[in-house]
Amino acid sequence: MNNYETQDNVEKTTAQSPYLYSRKSDNQQTTISLGSKVLGSEKVLFLAGPCSVESKQQMIDIAYELKEMGVTALRGGAYKPRTSPYSFQGHGEKALEWLAEVREKTGLAIVTEIMDPHLVPLFEQYVDVLQIGSRNMQNFVLLKSVGKSKLPVLLKRGMSSTIQEFLLASEYVLSQGNPNVILCERGIRTFENATRNTFDINAIPVLREKTHLPILADPSHGTGNSKYVLAVSRGAVAAGADGLLIEVHASPEEALSDGDQSITPQEFRKLVEEIGSIAHAVNRTI
Amino acid sequence: MNNYETQDNVEKTTAQSPYLYSRKSDNQQTTISLGSKVLGSEKVLFLAGPCSVESKQQMIDIAYELKEMGVTALRGGAYKPRTSPYSFQGHGEKALEWLAEVREKTGLAIVTEIMDPHLVPLFEQYVDVLQIGSRNMQNFVLLKSVGKSKLPVLLKRGMSSTIQEFLLASEYVLSQGNPNVILCERGIRTFENATRNTFDINAIPVLREKTHLPILADPSHGTGNSKYVLAVSRGAVAAGADGLLIEVHASPEEALSDGDQSITPQEFRKLVEEIGSIAHAVNRTI
Amino acid sequence: MNNYETQDNVEKTTAQSPYLYSRKSDNQQTTISLGSKVLGSEKVLFLAGPCSVESKQQMIDIAYELKEMGVTALRGGAYKPRTSPYSFQGHGEKALEWLAEVREKTGLAIVTEIMDPHLVPLFEQYVDVLQIGSRNMQNFVLLKSVGKSKLPVLLKRGMSSTIQEFLLASEYVLSQGNPNVILCERGIRTFENATRNTFDINAIPVLREKTHLPILADPSHGTGNSKYVLAVSRGAVAAGADGLLIEVHASPEEALSDGDQSITPQEFRKLVEEIGSIAHAVNRTI
Amino acid sequence: MNNYETQDNVEKTTAQSPYLYSRKSDNQQTTISLGSKVLGSEKVLFLAGPCSVESKQQMIDIAYELKEMGVTALRGGAYKPRTSPYSFQGHGEKALEWLAEVREKTGLAIVTEIMDPHLVPLFEQYVDVLQIGSRNMQNFVLLKSVGKSKLPVLLKRGMSSTIQEFLLASEYVLSQGNPNVILCERGIRTFENATRNTFDINAIPVLREKTHLPILADPSHGTGNSKYVLAVSRGAVAAGADGLLIEVHASPEEALSDGDQSITPQEFRKLVEEIGSIAHAVNRTI
Repeated sequence: MNNYETQDNVEKTTAQSPYLYSRKSDNQQTTISLGSKVLGSEKVLFLAGPCSVESKQQMIDIAYELKEMGVTALRGGAYKPRTSPYSFQGHGEKALEWLAEVREKTGLAIVTEIMDPHLVPLFEQYVDVLQIGSRNMQNFVLLKSVGKSKLPVLLKRGMSSTIQEFLLASEYVLSQGNPNVILCERGIRTFENATRNTFDINAIPVLREKTHLPILADPSHGTGNSKYVLAVSRGAVAAGADGLLIEVHASPEEALSDGDQSITPQEFRKLVEEIGSIAHAVNRTI
Repeated sequence: MNNYETQDNVEKTTAQSPYLYSRKSDNQQTTISLGSKVLGSEKVLFLAGPCSVESKQQMIDIAYELKEMGVTALRGGAYKPRTSPYSFQGHGEKALEWLAEVREKTGLAIVTEIMDPHLVPLFEQYVDVLQIGSRNMQNFVLLKSVGKSKLPVLLKRGMSSTIQEFLLASEYVLSQGNPNVILCERGIRTFENATRNTFDINAIPVLREKTHLPILADPSHGTGNSKYVLAVSRGAVAAGADGLLIEVHASPEEALSDGDQSITPQEFRKLVEEIGSIAHAVNRTI
Repeated sequence: MNNYETQDNVEKTTAQSPYLYSRKSDNQQTTISLGSKVLGSEKVLFLAGPCSVESKQQMIDIAYELKEMGVTALRGGAYKPRTSPYSFQGHGEKALEWLAEVREKTGLAIVTEIMDPHLVPLFEQYVDVLQIGSRNMQNFVLLKSVGKSKLPVLLKRGMSSTIQEFLLASEYVLSQGNPNVILCERGIRTFENATRNTFDINAIPVLREKTHLPILADPSHGTGNSKYVLAVSRGAVAAGADGLLIEVHASPEEALSDGDQSITPQEFRKLVEEIGSIAHAVNRTI
Repeated sequence: MNNYETQDNVEKTTAQSPYLYSRKSDNQQTTISLGSKVLGSEKVLFLAGPCSVESKQQMIDIAYELKEMGVTALRGGAYKPRTSPYSFQGHGEKALEWLAEVREKTGLAIVTEIMDPHLVPLFEQYVDVLQIGSRNMQNFVLLKSVGKSKLPVLLKRGMSSTIQEFLLASEYVLSQGNPNVILCERGIRTFENATRNTFDINAIPVLREKTHLPILADPSHGTGNSKYVLAVSRGAVAAGADGLLIEVHASPEEALSDGDQSITPQEFRKLVEEIGSIAHAVNRTI
């Protein structure tokens, strides 16, 4: 007995031909260009920014600040999946325009979440990476849709998805012809309530063994608490993550969403420095 | 610290005005017509059928058989969310046509899952109830889309969604103007592996206390094993469920999906009989 | 990969000889006398009482009241396992004496929790059933110790134990020569926080299939909330439980422990009545 | 609503006086001597050895080998908690004697699990650290018993215990007068089945914030798979662990228990080397 609806079919398929996500050799590694750097290389990359795009000026200010610290890609939500329909839902297309303008000014790559499969053409005008959020990890219509795009896809693990389900979700994208999928571990739902989620560090070596796709870590969602982001970031890179996705906000206590887990630019500067040491210890650079 | 992204906003909203799903009095109860019966009344309803629509003849045969046993609505998947992209994905629009033909012949209401928000108009031509599957419980684009339909929505609980998240997902539909939401408990994901999911019987009285929406139980997914469906069905109705959603297949071992948890028509006949006794014990009928 | 330390050994053993807990035929059923009734028979039994033994008079009063309503065994903690060392730890041996006096007066069987393996002889002087609490389900020294007693053992499922681990814990008792083990489902730990635990109703038919031991349900711990105890009690008996273990307190709001989940004698009277109807519906009596 | 039986009492106590485990200042740190080194200092310590003590010669051989690589304490089970009563239960007192002999020869500190509260005096004759296993984390009789010993206590987190419950379990020991408690994160039980447990890296900074007690990490149980032990060890030390508890076996495939998660001495040598680099990166040494 198991949790997979499709266990039988999955295994039959495996026997016939390996999955597109499967690592065929030790050296096989997908690399994806982000801004001026390459994810999946010996360099550990930083993707950072606020949870939500709140205003154009906010994004410009934080983007310059983050770029100077070595960040490669700016994250920020234009369309926000919120548990309640009455919570702030994001500034939508207007926010996409702002993000494109920030890219123009700073050269940072833009990563933002897409929820509607029919908005892929719109997003393609403005952004560099299509993010699929945890709640949509098994939204197969959306996965097939971004699988037909030329843009890389940042796929976040579902909050209660097994690693096998996570990999099979990436297969939905890959099988449509898009080879550029970034896997992002962002914490799973457990009984523990001292943290918002439990960052699954085990997933990093498990994914490394099973797939050639690059692996990001999101300690902001993985802990849900700015106090713990630094320690878990160090742990994730030490365990082998190719990059970090971090929520940074100039004034976390005023953020429209996720303020508890956002760190300040000052804290982020310290994080970059410490990650530099860890990267060095595992024979990488930042 | 908690699991809700929107805890603050949620609570602020609650303070200002109750949710549309909130029960305002002991007697308040939403009722929804299904075929010739009413869900949310003193009658316990049966919704049954195979996991996937496999052929027109299969659906006609099972529909007549189930109708004769007292079933109100026929379930069957035309578009199937499958963990692997290489598993059977459903017969799509053709299956919708077959389902409409079965409705024509038998008078059974048709319940089937919708995954693409842009297919609502197509589904409206063929079916009676739009089902939102567990994996899409927080697909907010889809929820808003079915919230604009005239058809009732059968919302399945996400496999690791809290009851509060489940209710807030229903609010996405209700807040778009569609008052007819059916909540379906279908088991949650836990560490236990003797069953596919853990049917959360506690959710039945919790939902009953918090909302006026009708409550279905799905012991097929809740257990994942045909051997346990009957006992858990009895338990769910004894605890207060308004109806049961049961996977029935003429030859479970040949089913294209979910064969392990499908019961045969003969077993279903026994189930209806036993549920009749339980319904009577809680002052209801079938 | 799985959660069982001993998977290999377990399976080898199974192949060689079935476990003592294993059901060998449909009719095989262990029965255990409790007071004037028999657990594991067609009668559904009630075991009830306060969480902690607070005073002799409290126990005498509640015992007479419960006996009159049809209760077979009185529960009450003399030694209390508490998460904090500074919480009330029970009245100890004095409480055992009070319990014995209540038995003398009322004829109710006495069920109470034992935590120290070396106190078995002391407990044997005063009580009828040795309860092993959830936190001690894999306290193998304690299990072996009660396995050498003549008294029946009420074994509560660990809060995150699989059903297989639960059965193997019973095997520790059985293999020491004590054939009288009562299995008690009391809810498992999940992500859901609307209830204290998630009552695992699936466990009832799974246990029924795998073992001949009698099965109790504890909806008080299974829900952690007095408002939901009645509905889940009905569900458990409908699903096949042989008896219910219910926390009843004359003034729940003043209870020294577990007040939130204790029901009043008035609520318990209603519960007995409703369970009578459910028992009848499943061809049993109370 | 929450999972703590004693929430009210816990909070009342907190208000009145902080717990003994509570960190009162940034610098407060309990240190514990182990062999020739000090746990809780700037040095990252290694505790290693086989799951079970299988023979005297096995222990002597591995002890010399591990000592030469920098290990401080030898672990090995004399009394084994096994899910099935028919699995190997350990060599008992004989194994304690062997361990004492190894200590004599090598100077390594001896860490071994105690399950019976009445065996404390026996263990005190032979070993240096009393280990409380996951299954006994809330065996309060045992906790009180080791709380009266002069030996340090290595307390493993329960497999589904919250961090708060873990800390309160340590309080049971501390409140009996024993100030030397070592907290060990060893993975928690989740839905994920690609690994035996989910190593909770978040727990490291959370514990660091809340307590002055030293923190060990056990990636062997935390992953359950020798392939992932190295990566998670690096992560744990990068996140701030004071030491590692690692299962090492000369021939894992022949181990009497836990062979899947045991690494070889050769793999351990590589681990020590890599941890040296990580320790350096976080301003520590090995």
